[in-house]
Amino acid sequence: MAEQPSAADATRAQGPADAVTRPLDEAECLRLISAGGVGRIGYTGRFGPTILPVNFVLHERAIVFRTGQASPMGEDLRTGIADAEFKVAFEIDEISPATREGWSILIQGSAHLVDSEPELTAVRQSGVQAWAGGEKELFIRIIPTRITGRRISRGQAPG
Amino acid sequence: MAEQPSAADATRAQGPADAVTRPLDEAECLRLISAGGVGRIGYTGRFGPTILPVNFVLHERAIVFRTGQASPMGEDLRTGIADAEFKVAFEIDEISPATREGWSILIQGSAHLVDSEPELTAVRQSGVQAWAGGEKELFIRIIPTRITGRRISRGQAPG
Repeated sequence: MAEQPSAADATRAQGPADAVTRPLDEAECLRLISAGGVGRIGYTGRFGPTILPVNFVLHERAIVFRTGQASPMGEDLRTGIADAEFKVAFEIDEISPATREGWSILIQGSAHLVDSEPELTAVRQSGVQAWAGGEKELFIRIIPTRITGRRISRGQAPG
Repeated sequence: MAEQPSAADATRAQGPADAVTRPLDEAECLRLISAGGVGRIGYTGRFGPTILPVNFVLHERAIVFRTGQASPMGEDLRTGIADAEFKVAFEIDEISPATREGWSILIQGSAHLVDSEPELTAVRQSGVQAWAGGEKELFIRIIPTRITGRRISRGQAPG
């Protein structure tokens, strides 16, 4: 009970599900998200903390996604990005509801508009598409300053 | 292009995926998440905006989940909750990677520690278990002040 496992140790739960949590290093995190897919951006918007799913690609170690100029997220991000540093979170996970095993990755950093023509060309070539459709005109890039992740597995199948 | 569809309208995308976005009303949002499962909490922590997955239940119109006293999230939330109003986001979604159809729900509100004995009893009876295992001693309740959601479907299958 008084034991404080180091971050590098796997910690075994006492509960019935017998969960083991292991931290993932940065290289493993980047490998797991290299294919892109659905992630969730978090930021403080006009109604407080906000989380929304987006389709992303990993492009030169940055998260890149598209959103609409006129969408609430687009407006929030444009307003925020107008300040020098607009800090955001980006979370990606893969969790099995049946076994409750899986991994989650948290990227923290600042969001920037992609607005130079060479960058836009490179990002368009990455093929990122918006999840929700609509007119998607903003390309947002998140430059990670902190990448953390963990994997949860179960010592025993729950049933 | 200049058309501004109202929030109540379905909007049809121009892209190849032909996505249709429909807002979900509050009753539909609560119905979709009534079974609980994995959701993601977002808040501003010591390293800025943070998103982490948790197992939750819906209990009397509130989101309830467990976390460890000594975990980084537990410490962040305890510190935040010590202030009068600790605003958080909670996101739940179900998105098919293959068809990129699905729904997402965003709950915004403030987080509170569940600490009275009758409440703790009720929450324990709801059967909420922590996703990641470990010693889970804090019960957190999010009382929604704003519930929004949207459903994305495709007019044409992508392939």
